[in-house]
Amino acid sequence: MTLSVAVAGASGYAGGELLRILADHPDFDIRTVTAHQNAGQPLAAHQPQLRSLAGLTLSESTAENLAGHDAVFLALPHGKSGEIAAQLPADTLVVDCGADHRLEDPGAWAAFYGGEHFGSWAYGVPELPVGAGKQRERLAGAKRIAAPGCNASAVSLALAPGIHAGLIEDADIVSVLAVGPSGAGKALKTMYLASEILGSANPYAVGGTHRHIPEIQQSLRKAGAPSPTISFTPVLVPMSRGILATSTARARSGVSAAQVQAAWEEAYAGEPFVQVLPAGSVPRTSDVLGANTVSIGVALDAAAGRVVTVLAIDNLYKGTAGAAIQSANIALGLAETAGLSVNGVAP
Amino acid sequence: MTLSVAVAGASGYAGGELLRILADHPDFDIRTVTAHQNAGQPLAAHQPQLRSLAGLTLSESTAENLAGHDAVFLALPHGKSGEIAAQLPADTLVVDCGADHRLEDPGAWAAFYGGEHFGSWAYGVPELPVGAGKQRERLAGAKRIAAPGCNASAVSLALAPGIHAGLIEDADIVSVLAVGPSGAGKALKTMYLASEILGSANPYAVGGTHRHIPEIQQSLRKAGAPSPTISFTPVLVPMSRGILATSTARARSGVSAAQVQAAWEEAYAGEPFVQVLPAGSVPRTSDVLGANTVSIGVALDAAAGRVVTVLAIDNLYKGTAGAAIQSANIALGLAETAGLSVNGVAP
Amino acid sequence: MTLSVAVAGASGYAGGELLRILADHPDFDIRTVTAHQNAGQPLAAHQPQLRSLAGLTLSESTAENLAGHDAVFLALPHGKSGEIAAQLPADTLVVDCGADHRLEDPGAWAAFYGGEHFGSWAYGVPELPVGAGKQRERLAGAKRIAAPGCNASAVSLALAPGIHAGLIEDADIVSVLAVGPSGAGKALKTMYLASEILGSANPYAVGGTHRHIPEIQQSLRKAGAPSPTISFTPVLVPMSRGILATSTARARSGVSAAQVQAAWEEAYAGEPFVQVLPAGSVPRTSDVLGANTVSIGVALDAAAGRVVTVLAIDNLYKGTAGAAIQSANIALGLAETAGLSVNGVAP
Amino acid sequence: MTLSVAVAGASGYAGGELLRILADHPDFDIRTVTAHQNAGQPLAAHQPQLRSLAGLTLSESTAENLAGHDAVFLALPHGKSGEIAAQLPADTLVVDCGADHRLEDPGAWAAFYGGEHFGSWAYGVPELPVGAGKQRERLAGAKRIAAPGCNASAVSLALAPGIHAGLIEDADIVSVLAVGPSGAGKALKTMYLASEILGSANPYAVGGTHRHIPEIQQSLRKAGAPSPTISFTPVLVPMSRGILATSTARARSGVSAAQVQAAWEEAYAGEPFVQVLPAGSVPRTSDVLGANTVSIGVALDAAAGRVVTVLAIDNLYKGTAGAAIQSANIALGLAETAGLSVNGVAP
Repeated sequence: MTLSVAVAGASGYAGGELLRILADHPDFDIRTVTAHQNAGQPLAAHQPQLRSLAGLTLSESTAENLAGHDAVFLALPHGKSGEIAAQLPADTLVVDCGADHRLEDPGAWAAFYGGEHFGSWAYGVPELPVGAGKQRERLAGAKRIAAPGCNASAVSLALAPGIHAGLIEDADIVSVLAVGPSGAGKALKTMYLASEILGSANPYAVGGTHRHIPEIQQSLRKAGAPSPTISFTPVLVPMSRGILATSTARARSGVSAAQVQAAWEEAYAGEPFVQVLPAGSVPRTSDVLGANTVSIGVALDAAAGRVVTVLAIDNLYKGTAGAAIQSANIALGLAETAGLSVNGVAP
Repeated sequence: MTLSVAVAGASGYAGGELLRILADHPDFDIRTVTAHQNAGQPLAAHQPQLRSLAGLTLSESTAENLAGHDAVFLALPHGKSGEIAAQLPADTLVVDCGADHRLEDPGAWAAFYGGEHFGSWAYGVPELPVGAGKQRERLAGAKRIAAPGCNASAVSLALAPGIHAGLIEDADIVSVLAVGPSGAGKALKTMYLASEILGSANPYAVGGTHRHIPEIQQSLRKAGAPSPTISFTPVLVPMSRGILATSTARARSGVSAAQVQAAWEEAYAGEPFVQVLPAGSVPRTSDVLGANTVSIGVALDAAAGRVVTVLAIDNLYKGTAGAAIQSANIALGLAETAGLSVNGVAP
Repeated sequence: MTLSVAVAGASGYAGGELLRILADHPDFDIRTVTAHQNAGQPLAAHQPQLRSLAGLTLSESTAENLAGHDAVFLALPHGKSGEIAAQLPADTLVVDCGADHRLEDPGAWAAFYGGEHFGSWAYGVPELPVGAGKQRERLAGAKRIAAPGCNASAVSLALAPGIHAGLIEDADIVSVLAVGPSGAGKALKTMYLASEILGSANPYAVGGTHRHIPEIQQSLRKAGAPSPTISFTPVLVPMSRGILATSTARARSGVSAAQVQAAWEEAYAGEPFVQVLPAGSVPRTSDVLGANTVSIGVALDAAAGRVVTVLAIDNLYKGTAGAAIQSANIALGLAETAGLSVNGVAP
Repeated sequence: MTLSVAVAGASGYAGGELLRILADHPDFDIRTVTAHQNAGQPLAAHQPQLRSLAGLTLSESTAENLAGHDAVFLALPHGKSGEIAAQLPADTLVVDCGADHRLEDPGAWAAFYGGEHFGSWAYGVPELPVGAGKQRERLAGAKRIAAPGCNASAVSLALAPGIHAGLIEDADIVSVLAVGPSGAGKALKTMYLASEILGSANPYAVGGTHRHIPEIQQSLRKAGAPSPTISFTPVLVPMSRGILATSTARARSGVSAAQVQAAWEEAYAGEPFVQVLPAGSVPRTSDVLGANTVSIGVALDAAAGRVVTVLAIDNLYKGTAGAAIQSANIALGLAETAGLSVNGVAP
């Protein structure tokens, strides 16, 4: 059975990655691609790499154009998805790759985003431990899904196993991320110019202001953390894609390296897209570039009293578009792995 | 007065940066450049960028060739400097850019390096708070100087003000660094190939094994920390030079953002090469590329209970060669800033 | 029907890309992976990105280990394939990604490579015009195939249409290529270190010495050029993959821009992997990264009297592994496009 | 004697490089820095790397603010300099880093730029052969100087010796350049975003449309070419700075490699900033990054019938700001090399 699908925000980076994956997905047929500023133009003018879709033309990102499909993926700036989603039929699967429907707590929304809070949807990180189960269960049959923030899922997936197993404290988590600029989309700001980023490492949102912080806290609470606190610092580095998240937390007293390794392996045993590396190994972002894979290395630094996790994902693939499509697969009853690659493009 | 100078290890990256700075230094005259494998070859074959020194030829890195100068800079693999230095006259200034003479504690040496410990020399980070003074005082008149590890000085300089002022705890420091591969020198290992590093973020020495950890602890103890512990993770990113160190520590209770900003500003007031940015600003490595400048931004993340510091240095300049020459300036009674640039090459 | 396949040189970059494509190919089953120095090690130690193949172990690259499969792909240094291929059964399909069997002219081999010449095999660039047909015809049913040099196929495909149509002269072709370092494999040479390549453009083999020159001449002769001469300069640039070839040739007198555009479009009409862009457009290497696509823009510079072509390919995909597999598909009677992607991974 | 200087366009990349060089120049004192959009802001907000100038504030780019200095450097978009320069006193040295005053031929201006042609000024490439002398002579005492286009001076300097010596033909020159994006300034266009440029080689202005073509022709005519034609293709590559120009021309019949090498060496003998490498050597852009050096390698490709030149410059330094300051040194009777570095920052 082939399902018809529409992608809004198809001229951007997240939209392009959604289309690239969907183009090879066995169960979907891309029928509509929409944009705001670029409506009316050929898709190929904005996504020249998508040769198999070169015949498509961008229409306007309106509810009218997006209605009438089995699934709609929204890759729009935050604040735009809520309005459109409200006008789409309740029985259409809508997956929002923006931030509008991620946070359950209106207070957190107000503090970090501001403006109208559109409520929260089923959160699109199937592998997250939630209580005794996994987030996957909440996605089955869902009609509204909030794809995660790429940095948020990187940190949450890295630490949830330790929280879940009671091996780490939830207070005083520290996470520093090396991130590629594609996560910022095609925004025309001086800080994203190639001349600013080539040859340099550029931190931003330092000191507790990044919008993914409450999203991480929400996920860690579901994994069992009563009141997680996190120091979170992203650093832009000169690679187009990728997140390398170094996330550490205080080890509970008496915890051994073997326990740590076992807890992470157990948490993700059988997960098709999460790989816990053998003790002593760490991932690189190139290992997962162009793949839906999450690769994690974990170590106990006994002298520092911390569990150190290093996690690599492709921010556009597993961090955004892959998470959206994996969640849609689950929601629609398709094979969870359908159309998703586990092998990275390296070097 | 012109002083004669020799540089050992002149075909490597640290050696090249020493020569580049010394070539424009008003008080030094480069008389001898030596190498091991490349002895007998023209310097220009290995440092084509040093056009003003194109006439020099590499001789063998022997004590005989290095003796007879006012100052000798050693940019050799660790384990090589100790032997050569022992054969140089006691009244010759010797600055070791390797690790051999940094650690005071033989136990730390044994644990992180192994092999013979050659003892410790005056440590080449003049700006470090030591007791009520600065490390600078210990460099005046010194004849043997250990230039710092680039990562070590990045973390020590970032946190020492908070330790010194009693605003942060020394237990449970967490530091994650984005670093360029030039710090590894010209070692021919697969992990340093361009194909491995382009487009990727690659962590290494994860979990408490990096050799700069005891060096950081030593510096922080001198700044007043009774028993510092640190989780330290370096991440190679695709820029040739630079260190962006995100170092955080738990804020002592009741500490305010204004106190934090003031403590860092005070610690480095009048320092010619350390810049504490205004509150709300953070540095990028391109700001300090090709300069002896240390640029630091600091913030209090009240929700996380941590002071967050972000520090940028050029690993080859202020991290290695600039620190060595600045220290030599002090030791020889020259102007501390002689020959050293404060302006970065950007973009 | 599933065919069994072996890949020799599986720990290198070309070997890795062969495996990445073959892993998702509907008709092949990877049974054997071999290496020289790394025999006995898990494949995952050298190709951590190939998660679906993580269970494989590298065996020795011997004819014995490689025999008994339907197809064998050799990704070995030149000089190594000839010997092994000679020991493989005549009815096994052997595709050599090295240079050993590309050149028909022993004199050209002697001048540019030296050592024993193993003769020439069917050349693996199906789209090349050969006489009134295409090279494709010579691949059908072939049992020995020489995959092309990546730079060679970039230049040959760019210019062959103009030669074939009689619109350009074959004397005095000029081609300059921006190339990523992965084409050089994992060779441990200083010139391929990240520190040498990041932030720099580095030419090599300047002045007519590059080994792909006779290969280009051979292809252009088949397309109709009586005696092509070419000035060929490759420039290493800081991207892991990709070739951007700017190839120009003198326009025959009276040739119009419309004739030029038409000739290129006609030459590649119906080709599944070659895209001739509309007049006024040029490709970028990111358009074809991770794809088997060749993207070409062509222009007539009337003032300069030259036809200018700009061609982008991924050196590891269409330049090497994709060409090998596409050719194998043809040789084995499979769908030519089986297992090969046309969509690039961008940004 | 200290001369007062003003820099207009001080918040851009060319302006920043002018200031970086002028800050260490022994004869200049930076008194005024101006901008258009950013007037009123601290210079440090736009040039954080210029620590020694952190106290300066940007004023408006008006003739009033720029008047009253010994020298004025204009780093403005083309079309802006002409107007302002006309209002500055005739005895003030004005150096225009924009294109407004480079072309002598109004027809060429109309064809490649359009709009009002402000006439031509003394051209700021002192080393160019002009008739029996050098362009240097025309700069002595000049009050109006047009700094060159970075790509134009790269190609002109590469080929002028062969034209001057009669060794190459001026018809059918072919030049392909790998260039960093900083040459485009801080223009906010999608094509200059880091995500577009990282990991990719992106050609532009293909087919004879680049504005530096008539400027090259003008310089080569002065070197003795009766009617030069050139195929010129620039390719953006992922390095912040640098131009690697591969420029070839047909060798006159009977020309030997030794003659070629000798002609280039002779043309630049004694030039402080131009280095002709020994036969068999080629430059890399990292050799000259942060320096006023031009590095050239030259070869005769006898089989192709072409002289091949490879030239490296830093587009912001020798390509723009260094050329401007070197020319100003000459015009003002200062030492030509004052304040200009010959050593590159590498790696």
